[in-house]
Amino acid sequence: MNKEQLFEQIKKKNSFLCVGLDTDIDKIPEFLRANEDPIFEFNKRIIEATAAYTIAYKPNLAFYESIGVKGWLALTKTVEFIRNNYSDIFIIADAKRGDIGNTSKMYAKAFFEDMDFDAVTVAPYMGEDSVTPFLGYKNKWVILLGLTSNMGADDFQFLGNPPLYKQVIKKAQYWASDEELMFVAGATRATMLKEIRNLAPDNFLLVPGVGAQGGSLAEVAKNGMNSSCGLLVNSSRAIIYADNTERFAEVAKEKAHETQQEMEQLLKDYLPKI
Amino acid sequence: MNKEQLFEQIKKKNSFLCVGLDTDIDKIPEFLRANEDPIFEFNKRIIEATAAYTIAYKPNLAFYESIGVKGWLALTKTVEFIRNNYSDIFIIADAKRGDIGNTSKMYAKAFFEDMDFDAVTVAPYMGEDSVTPFLGYKNKWVILLGLTSNMGADDFQFLGNPPLYKQVIKKAQYWASDEELMFVAGATRATMLKEIRNLAPDNFLLVPGVGAQGGSLAEVAKNGMNSSCGLLVNSSRAIIYADNTERFAEVAKEKAHETQQEMEQLLKDYLPKI
Repeated sequence: MNKEQLFEQIKKKNSFLCVGLDTDIDKIPEFLRANEDPIFEFNKRIIEATAAYTIAYKPNLAFYESIGVKGWLALTKTVEFIRNNYSDIFIIADAKRGDIGNTSKMYAKAFFEDMDFDAVTVAPYMGEDSVTPFLGYKNKWVILLGLTSNMGADDFQFLGNPPLYKQVIKKAQYWASDEELMFVAGATRATMLKEIRNLAPDNFLLVPGVGAQGGSLAEVAKNGMNSSCGLLVNSSRAIIYADNTERFAEVAKEKAHETQQEMEQLLKDYLPKI
Repeated sequence: MNKEQLFEQIKKKNSFLCVGLDTDIDKIPEFLRANEDPIFEFNKRIIEATAAYTIAYKPNLAFYESIGVKGWLALTKTVEFIRNNYSDIFIIADAKRGDIGNTSKMYAKAFFEDMDFDAVTVAPYMGEDSVTPFLGYKNKWVILLGLTSNMGADDFQFLGNPPLYKQVIKKAQYWASDEELMFVAGATRATMLKEIRNLAPDNFLLVPGVGAQGGSLAEVAKNGMNSSCGLLVNSSRAIIYADNTERFAEVAKEKAHETQQEMEQLLKDYLPKI
C-alpha cells in the first residue's frame, strides 16, 4: 500500500487506528484454548470484529515467537487471513529488527517475501546498511524507531546534541523518502511529537503508547497530525483484552469503535477540508 | 552455562571460536536440497564436523525466519541437536531483539524457555527496561550490542561525548553483572577493542567480523583478551561456506581447526599460565 492509498483508507474509515495483535496465549479467553490454533482463532475474531474501524494491524512478533513454531504458524495464517479478506488493510510486523546488510536482507525477505507484510519496524542502532536492505520493495515500508514510549527511552535516545532520536529522524530521511519510511514516535511523550513532526513533516508516524501505556489521543493528534493525517495510532491491550469472556470480540469492537469515533472528531477538528 | 564453565571450555579446547550458523538455503551444497529439512541437515553436519574446535554456535535468526515456519522448525531442531549431543557447547541466538518490557519478556521466553539458548543478542536503543527482561534466568546471558562491525556503525554509535557505544557499555554494567552480560564488539575495529576492554574489563566480548568481514584475529586477541580470555570470536561464512561440494563438512572442519590452532597460539601468547 502506498502513502496515497493509506490516506484514502483513513478518509474512508475516518480512522487512523492501528490495532496491535500482542496475542498472548495466557491472556486470551479460556474457552478459545481448546481450539486447534487458539492464537489464530483469537486474531481472526478480533480482526472480523474491528476491521471496519481499523486502518492497520500490527502483530507483535515476540508474542508469536514465544511459543515457537506454533506461533510462527499462527502469525503466517493471521497475515494471510487479513490479505485474503481485507484488501484495504495495512499490516505491520512489529519486529524491531536490524543487523548487518546481508542479515537485514534476510529479515526483509522474511517479512516482505515469505510473508506479505506492508511494513516492518526497524531499530536504528546499526545505521544505514542495517536499514536500507528493507527498502526498495514496491509499496513496502520501513518504520524506524525514533522516540519510543518506554521509560528506557531516556537511557540513550536523548544523548548528544541534538539528541540521538532527532539525529536518527534527520539522517534516515537521506536514506529513504516519505513514500517508504515512517517513524515510531511514542505517545507517552506527546509534546515531543511536535518537534518530531517539525523534523519529519511529511512522514507517517506510528504512535504506540495510547491506552495501556497512558498516552492521550487528543494530544497526539494536536501535536502530530499533518495534512495527510500522517498518523497511525496503535492500541493493543486496551482493545484486544478489553474483555475476557465469550463477548471478547464484541467488546473489542465497541472499544475500536469508540476510538474510531474519537479519531473521526479529531480528523474533523484538524483536517476540516478532507 | 556460567562464566567459569565457559572459561573451562576455552581452556579444554584451546579455542574461543564461535561458529555462526547463517544457514542460507541458496548457499548450501546442491545435493543437500533434496533432504526433507536441508537447513537442519546442513547445520547437523557442520556441527558434527566442527564441535571439537568450537566453544559456541550462533544461529543467525534472520536466515531461519526468511523461510518461515520451516526455518523456525530447523532452528528449533538445531538447538535441540546441540543440546542433546554436546552438553559443553554455548548456544547464542543472534537475534538483535529489544522492545518495551512486556514484549522483551516474550522474546526472553522464546529464546530461554521455548528454546534452550544460552544467550541472546540484544539491541540497546530502547534502554534498560528493554534489556532487563532477558536477565535473571540462571546461567543465561544477554549479549548487548556495543560497537558493531558494519559501516553503519558510524551513523549513530559514535555520536555524543563520550560516544554512544561507550555510554551503552558503561551504563549496561549497572543493569547486570559480568556473569550474565556480554557485549558485541566488532573485529573490524580491533584497535577500539582496547578501549572497550578498558570500559568492561571483566565482560566477555562477542566479536563478529573476523573472516568474510575482514577483521584480524591476532589484533582482536592483542586488544581484547583478559585473564579469563573474555573473547568469543565469531566466524560464519569463512567456515560454513568454505566449500560447496560433498566435502563441505570436511572443509569446514579444516577451517575450524585452522582457526582453533591460531587461537591456541594466541592463548599461549597472552595467557601463558592457563
